[in-house]
Amino acid sequence: MSPITRFGISMDSKLLNRFDKLISEQGYSNRSEAFRDLVRDRLVKEEWESEELETVGTITIIYDHHKRELAETIIDHQHHRYDSIISTLHVHLDVHNCLEVLAVKGKAKDIKKIADELISTKGVKHGKLVMTSTGENL
Amino acid sequence: MSPITRFGISMDSKLLNRFDKLISEQGYSNRSEAFRDLVRDRLVKEEWESEELETVGTITIIYDHHKRELAETIIDHQHHRYDSIISTLHVHLDVHNCLEVLAVKGKAKDIKKIADELISTKGVKHGKLVMTSTGENL
Amino acid sequence: MSPITRFGISMDSKLLNRFDKLISEQGYSNRSEAFRDLVRDRLVKEEWESEELETVGTITIIYDHHKRELAETIIDHQHHRYDSIISTLHVHLDVHNCLEVLAVKGKAKDIKKIADELISTKGVKHGKLVMTSTGENL
Amino acid sequence: MSPITRFGISMDSKLLNRFDKLISEQGYSNRSEAFRDLVRDRLVKEEWESEELETVGTITIIYDHHKRELAETIIDHQHHRYDSIISTLHVHLDVHNCLEVLAVKGKAKDIKKIADELISTKGVKHGKLVMTSTGENL
Repeated sequence: MSPITRFGISMDSKLLNRFDKLISEQGYSNRSEAFRDLVRDRLVKEEWESEELETVGTITIIYDHHKRELAETIIDHQHHRYDSIISTLHVHLDVHNCLEVLAVKGKAKDIKKIADELISTKGVKHGKLVMTSTGENL
Repeated sequence: MSPITRFGISMDSKLLNRFDKLISEQGYSNRSEAFRDLVRDRLVKEEWESEELETVGTITIIYDHHKRELAETIIDHQHHRYDSIISTLHVHLDVHNCLEVLAVKGKAKDIKKIADELISTKGVKHGKLVMTSTGENL
Repeated sequence: MSPITRFGISMDSKLLNRFDKLISEQGYSNRSEAFRDLVRDRLVKEEWESEELETVGTITIIYDHHKRELAETIIDHQHHRYDSIISTLHVHLDVHNCLEVLAVKGKAKDIKKIADELISTKGVKHGKLVMTSTGENL
Repeated sequence: MSPITRFGISMDSKLLNRFDKLISEQGYSNRSEAFRDLVRDRLVKEEWESEELETVGTITIIYDHHKRELAETIIDHQHHRYDSIISTLHVHLDVHNCLEVLAVKGKAKDIKKIADELISTKGVKHGKLVMTSTGENL
């Protein structure tokens, strides 16, 4: 736990008003926490730009498991990367559609590669990578 | 939250000594909690014997996803029961072996059926059903 | 399964070259699949703009579970919405940091609200909502 | 993939009939698969008796997250063992009750210890350890 620093920021009041309105809608109870979140989000982006850093992400995909051999292909992709993929949450949305969320740890560039492979697989209807962080330096 | 009743139990001291030793090894800090757990475990068994009651279970299976169409079969079994299976946690143990844990809610007999189907599938190396409870009456 | 339509698109060749380069890096084996993904992504955005539609999302958060009562607060938030939250995958990243991914189903506006509440909670270091889809109309 | 050996077994026909009836109810399509499952189950038990072997288990617990600081205690127990716990699936059963399933990898004795700690925690209503396997030698 590092010491807390207090400091001032000057900002166009119109800009600040819009920001205050937004964060109040989002449920923030104070402005400092909202600014800390902005800073942390920027630092996470930085982590991901330096592709060699160890980081954490989640990959969300939606697919129809009835598509020819798709479940096999997806599970195969994942096992070749099993040292990076921590685990996968699978939800059966209906008789056809699956939601899968993978928790992945590794180098930013490797996580991006896994996400690209999965999302570009034919039959995967929708997919998104969340670039987050190990939390260590935030 | 119902009121707490205190009551006495008489027991062969040798039997009690063995029980006290066991629960201390298991980390219980007091004997009443250990007895409450015995009672709750017995009640859960009861819930599962009356097969029509709504209850909760987890099914753990280990399989080799390279076995011909096994991943497809397993995912298929699950989707036909998608209203009972809440979600599935998948862990890639190595290049071949998968651990899957399914959280299932439904009638005791339906959960047993899903477990039987999955565990008896050719290529599933090991499988166990945990019969637990919705927690409502414990 | 609806019938397949083939149709032509005209596009500035420089623009197309850049797109082809990008999708080949992402691992797409053909251009049509990449275009289908663009269209599906646009339709998912639409689903989320109409806030009353039933849809699916995942919320990823990173937090330090040692922060005063944070784990309690987070689990509390989730239980008040337990009819929307299908399940949660929790990964212990290190002694302090947790990764949590929630699979959520419900009206777009309700899912956004859950995400806002969790991400704005003091002590949550980083959080992102993935707006995806039930997959039904994609 | 090792070669397949065929061999004969002699058995009391009454015993065999009961077994055949049981496995047909469980959905086995052939008797050999049912016998293979018996053998594998016995080998898994062996793995767990030799407490130093690396193995895999799942721990299922049901608890009321409103109980004073229980969620904190449970998450704390887990983080002190974060190198063994691969990940946790959490399901909000109702406003009070949680189902948690932990996927755990490590020495048999360490996994048993984690299970004992969690299940004996005051407020945990029900808990069971499934002793399974890495699948490597099955």
